[in-house]
This record gives sequence, structure tokens and C-alpha cells, in this order.
Amino acid sequence: MKRLNVDLGDRSYPILIGEGILSRMPEFLAERGIKTVNKLLIVTDDTVAGYHLAPLQEILTQAGYSAAVHTVPAGEQSKTLEQFEEVITSALKAGLDRHSVIIALGGGVVGDLAGFAAASFMRGIRFVQVPTTILAHDSSVGGKVAVNHRFAKNIIGAFHQPELVLFDTALLKTLPQREIRAGLAEVIKEGLIWDADFVAWCEEHADALLALSPEETAYALYNGCHVKAQVVSQDEREQSLRAILNLGHTIGHALEAVAQYQQLLHGEAISIGMVGSAKLAVRLGYDPEIYTTTKRILQKFGLPVRIPHDYSTEQILQAMMHDKKFRDGKMVFVVPVAIGKTEIRDDIEASWIKEIIDELKQEA
Amino acid sequence: MKRLNVDLGDRSYPILIGEGILSRMPEFLAERGIKTVNKLLIVTDDTVAGYHLAPLQEILTQAGYSAAVHTVPAGEQSKTLEQFEEVITSALKAGLDRHSVIIALGGGVVGDLAGFAAASFMRGIRFVQVPTTILAHDSSVGGKVAVNHRFAKNIIGAFHQPELVLFDTALLKTLPQREIRAGLAEVIKEGLIWDADFVAWCEEHADALLALSPEETAYALYNGCHVKAQVVSQDEREQSLRAILNLGHTIGHALEAVAQYQQLLHGEAISIGMVGSAKLAVRLGYDPEIYTTTKRILQKFGLPVRIPHDYSTEQILQAMMHDKKFRDGKMVFVVPVAIGKTEIRDDIEASWIKEIIDELKQEA
Ligand SMILES: NC(=O)c1ccc[n+]([C@@H]2O[C@H](COP(=O)([O-])OP(=O)(O)OC[C@H]3O[C@@H](n4cnc5c(N)ncnc54)[C@H](O)[C@@H]3O)[C@@H](O)[C@H]2O)c1
Ligand SMILES: NC(=O)c1ccc[n+]([C@@H]2O[C@H](COP(=O)([O-])OP(=O)(O)OC[C@H]3O[C@@H](n4cnc5c(N)ncnc54)[C@H](O)[C@@H]3O)[C@@H](O)[C@H]2O)c1
Ligand SMILES: [Zn+2]
Ligand SMILES: [Zn+2]
Repeated sequence: MKRLNVDLGDRSYPILIGEGILSRMPEFLAERGIKTVNKLLIVTDDTVAGYHLAPLQEILTQAGYSAAVHTVPAGEQSKTLEQFEEVITSALKAGLDRHSVIIALGGGVVGDLAGFAAASFMRGIRFVQVPTTILAHDSSVGGKVAVNHRFAKNIIGAFHQPELVLFDTALLKTLPQREIRAGLAEVIKEGLIWDADFVAWCEEHADALLALSPEETAYALYNGCHVKAQVVSQDEREQSLRAILNLGHTIGHALEAVAQYQQLLHGEAISIGMVGSAKLAVRLGYDPEIYTTTKRILQKFGLPVRIPHDYSTEQILQAMMHDKKFRDGKMVFVVPVAIGKTEIRDDIEASWIKEIIDELKQEA
Repeated sequence: MKRLNVDLGDRSYPILIGEGILSRMPEFLAERGIKTVNKLLIVTDDTVAGYHLAPLQEILTQAGYSAAVHTVPAGEQSKTLEQFEEVITSALKAGLDRHSVIIALGGGVVGDLAGFAAASFMRGIRFVQVPTTILAHDSSVGGKVAVNHRFAKNIIGAFHQPELVLFDTALLKTLPQREIRAGLAEVIKEGLIWDADFVAWCEEHADALLALSPEETAYALYNGCHVKAQVVSQDEREQSLRAILNLGHTIGHALEAVAQYQQLLHGEAISIGMVGSAKLAVRLGYDPEIYTTTKRILQKFGLPVRIPHDYSTEQILQAMMHDKKFRDGKMVFVVPVAIGKTEIRDDIEASWIKEIIDELKQEA
């Protein structure tokens, strides 16, 4: 088992990663001062519940914990204030109080929803994350929790750190292959912004990662979390440094929006976005290797690197305007200035981005 | 003008109290780094808007600020997640971003609702309180913001400190007399728990306070905030000391619940509750003066000291069970051990409370 301490002063917490560690949950809860007298509420989605809820309940019950359950429909459409209110209703019905704990069993959707419920219930109770997707390694660090508004994603939320993240790689085995790839895109991103060695390691171990080999998966998740933790602990409230985590996200978010969050998974969208950022880097005079390496790795993972032909360049640019990365006509962009090194540039001509988007549609 | 600094490290903020100081709003905003480029959203209720919105808008516009407005219906029924979502919708429509500021113009309801919106919008933007009730002095300190759930009051919220509280006593002139009295009950409470001199001063200046004389009103609000600030800055996250602020509230909340929040204002309910706590103190062997003084002052302010005959003792006790102040069969109670001094006791026999409630129904 790997253990990563996210260092945030008195809100520090451990991320535990390993194959089969769910069974050790009671030990980890106890270590964090969560006792059997503390009521638990497990929040999950109906897909994840089908695979992994019963074992978790069994483990907790055996150890003397009492845990109520709240299940939401699987998918992004559950990240709403309405579903949030339902979680609170369940919390009240289950008699939760300020000493209780919410456990998020699921991917990023469940983590964000349950986390915001924990942040708000009685103005904040403890919560524990049991991520069941690779992408959710990203939500395990940073304390960001949120729901969506019909006009904007993740716009209603809080910063609320978990007590503990328990990442059992065995739970990932039921994930569809496409979700695995997409999740790994975000792991590769952590390498691209911060750690060139890790990028090389990912490329070398692509097959093992796609097959979810326990050792390699744990190592990759550990590294992904580690990079994010380093960035975040230097910038907890998202002032500036933290923005580098958005590599590939300006274009990626725009693509997701244009496809109305239907066709592209988040990881797929940022995969294309990272190729776009790499192109931008080359245009700004940085090493052309940045582009070739970025693209080669993503392709090795079976991730898309091209914008589908039928996406309108105009719409993509429009969608970017809605994003928050604009300042005084010029665009703010996260640029990879080398593999493993990133900078925030606020002087990017919109016309360049238009050209890059057009090129991304022609990408081989 | 009086200025009170609420000392909370890097979340410290000033409370400004004085007659006619609304006109100086731009100066105070500037002092807090809120510039005319920062978009503002004023949240208010339709009663308060009728009296005080136009002047505030005028003052802000004159100074070059642009401020959108969101108005909710007056009253506690606006403290819901639905209304909260509407505030967020207005914030998005007005184009608020992370540098924007929400201004709460109103009583405790508007303060709590707008404050929770500010706490959650983009995971937290700045907010400014312009309280228009006396009771809202209480929400000006402590950073508690929340909305209600149909099962429980104030159960969904956050701790979010304002940038600034601007308390213009002139705005109180439009308050109904009953709201003035009820608000003063909470001010008197601050004295009873912490400051005997202030209690004496309140008694002496009852007429001036009820007439909202500017000097006395400002002094009373200043002192009320000051006591609460001292308590809160020693215990920001409500661990123990802060509980003394709940003097009179265990019985008070139960009375409000039994009357379904229709007959008694909060301040009226805690007025009766404080008489109950004083009775308990005497029963525990403390100076009988505690009771006579408490009752005499509250009566001088025209506040109720008796439980109406038709309230069922059984229902009141039931309602207390739902409150969080129970532990192992014994009740936790805030007890005034002298005028200006309070203790938390966790060994109060439920049978005593029943007797005290019965006595409170007979109170002359
Ligand atoms: N808080 C943060 O810092 C942060 C960071 C990144 C992403 N996010 C959020 O995370 C969400 C995306 O995360 P996600 O991709 O994990 O989404 P998700 O939670 O919707 O999971 C994706 C799909 O996989 C299913 N699933 C999850 N675990 C499974 C398993 N073990 N076996 C089989 N199926 C499983 C889910 O039911 C869902 O249908 C977005 O809402 C995004 O905004 C948050
Ligand atoms: N956050 C905290 O720490 C805290 C502390 C105490 C109370 N509260 C909350 O505050 C609320 C009660 O506060 P409140 O009594 O101010 O309630 P309120 O905001 O509902 O105001 C009471 C009534 O007075 C009207 N009003 C307000 N200002 C007026 C003015 N200047 N002229 C004429 N009418 C005016 C309002 O429209 C309303 O009808 C409750 O929801 C309570 O939970 C919060
Ligand atoms: Zn992402
Ligand atoms: Zn009160």
C-alpha cells in the first residue's frame, strides 16, 4: 500500500492507495478518529452501488459501524442542487449530527456531490472519499467540491478537505475501458505539467496501466495525486500556481461544452486540449519535441488527439469566451514550456488559438 | 461612528456602526479593496427594498460601482435552497466572477441567504453586510450563514466571514416596534452572558433604545457585537465557549417550534427562555437576583416573560429533544451563574426543566 500525506496544516490528510485495501477501512477510520459511535452516510451512484456497495457495507457493519446509504443516478446529471438537497434529507433522516461522517463511494460526480453535502451539512462535517474511477484521483486532492448550475458547471461549491482518501485499485476493475483511458489522460497531464520522468514512465507502462495491473496502477495514481498535492499545498485557494493543473482544459472544456457533454469524456477532451497546448508551445518557440512527445503518449493510450471534423471552430471559440481564462482581449493559457514544466501565459492572441483549433481538426 | 474590528487573523473585518453612514459606503468598500471594476450583487427582501434599496443603489452608482439586484420575498420562508439557487442564477446572469461581491441589505434572513450564496458561488466570493434589523447585529459576527431544510433550521450552510459590516442605524427607523423590541432581547442577552455593566446600562437607557436614539442605539449594537466578537474569536468553529451565546435558546427554540414559527418572534421566544434559565440558576443555588434582574429588564423592554397558557408543556419538551442540547438523558443548559457570567452545565435533570416550563406558564 502507498500512503501520501496531503500537507495542509491542521487539515492534512492521507491518501491510501493499494489493491484490496477496502477491507482495512475500519482501521483507517479509527486512525482518523472516526469511531463506531459516529454515524456514517455512504453516498454512491446506482452503477457503483451495483458493484461495490454491499462489500463496503459488510466491512463497516462487521466492524460495528452503522452506515446509512444514499444512492443517486449515475452520471453528471446528478451534480445538481436538487440531488444535493436529497443527500441532506437522507442525512437528516439518518440522524446525522456534527460528529457524523459522509463517505463518498464513486467517481468524481459522487465525490463532488457528497463532498459539498459534507461541507454544508451543519456548516461542515467530516467526509471520506473512496474513489472508484481513475479520474477521481484528481478530486482526491485539492478539496474542491461542487454541484452544477444549469448555466455553469461546478459553480456552487466549497473547499472542504476529506479526512481520508481510500483508493482501492481493485474497485477500478469494473470500470469500462473508455473510462480507464480517459482517467489516465488526467494522470498523464500531471506528468506533463510537473514531472518529465513520470511522463516517460507512463509511456513505458501504458499496457500495464490500461490493463489495471495493481502495482503500476497504484504507482500512477500515487504520482498523479502527488503532483497535484504539491501544486495545491503551495496554493490552496487557487490563486495562481494551481492554474497549471488546467493544462489542456481551456480547449478541453470548450470541446465538452460544444458537444454538450455528450460525446467526449472529460479526459478525452483534455487529451485533445493538451495536444493543442503543445502546438501553442511550439508556435511560441519552445522545443518541437513537446508536441511530438505529448501526442505520441496520448495516442499510445488510445486517447483522441484530433477535434472531430463536425465541431464548429466558431462555436469552440465562443465556448472559450464563456470560460474564465480571458483577460483584456488576450487569452490566458497554460503552456507546456518543456515536458514536465508549465507556465501561465496571459498574452496569447485569440487568432493563434483559432488557427490551432483548425489545425487540430486536420491532425493525423 | 463606532468601529469594531472582529479579529480573526487574515479573515478579520470591521463592523462600522453609526447614523447615516450608508452614504460613506464607497469609502468603506475602497478601504477593503473592493473597486469599481468589481461587480456587485445586492441581495435584499421586498419589504426592505421598498424603503432602502434605491438610496443604496444611488450611492453605489454615484461612486461608479455597478450593482445588480436580487430581491426575495420578506420573511423566513425565503431561507431555502430554492431561493439560494435563484440568487446564484442572478449572480450568473449579472456576470459575477470570483472578484465580485455580494451585498446583503436586510435582516438576518437576507444576511444568511446572501451569505451562503457568497460562500458557495465559485466556492466563495466576498460579501458585505448591511444589516437593517437590530437582531442582525447577531449575524454580523461569527460568520455563520445558512438556509433551512424543511426538516431543520439553518442546517445547510457554511462559515463565511464578511469583508465588512456597515450598520447604519438610520435604516432601523422603518422597523416595526415589535421587531425593535425582539432585536433588543438579543442585545440584552449579550450583556447577560458577559457584561453586567452593559446590562445595567441597557436597563437605564431602555426608553432611548426603544425610540432608536442614534447614540444609544449605536452604543448598544456596538456592545452586542463586541461581546459576541470576543466569544467567537476565542472559539471560531463553535467548539464550546461559543455555546454560551445560546442563553435562553434551548427553551426559546422549543417555543418557536411549538408555535410553528408563527406567533413568537425569535427575540420574544428567547426572552421567555432567558427567564427560564434564570429560574434554573436560582434552583441550582445561585443568587435569586439573577432571576429578578433578568425579568425586570426584559419587562422594561416590553418583552414577554411568560409562556402562553395554551402551549403544551409536553410539546415543548418534545421539541427540546429534537434540539442538539441533550447528552445521555441529562440536558445541557446554558446557565447564568451571575448577571454577566454564564456556564454550560450538562447535568440538568429533565424533570427540573418540566417544572420550570410549568412555572413559566404561571409567571406574573
Ligand atoms: N473536485 C475536483 O477537484 C474534481 C477534479 C476532477 C473532476 N471532477 C469532477 O468529477 C466528475 C467526473 O468524474 P468521473 O469521471 O469519475 O465521473 P463519474 O463519477 O460520473 O464516473 C463516470 C462513470 O463511471 C461509473 N463508475 C464509477 N466507478 C465505477 C466503477 N468502479 N465501475 C464501474 N462503473 C463505475 C459511474 O457510475 C459513471 O457512470 C466531473 O463532475 C468533474 O467535474 C472534480
Ligand atoms: N447567522 C447568524 O449568526 C444568525 C444569528 C441570529 C439570527 N440569524 C437568523 O436571522 C433571521 C432572523 O433575523 P431578522 O429578525 O433580522 O429577520 P428578517 O430578516 O426576516 O427581518 C424581520 C422582518 O423585518 C423586515 N425588515 C427588515 N429590516 C427592516 C427595516 N429596516 N424596515 C422595515 N422592515 C424591515 C423584514 O422584511 C422581515 O419581514 C433568522 O433566520 C435567524 O436564523 C442568524
Ligand atoms: Zn480535468
Ligand atoms: Zn438568537
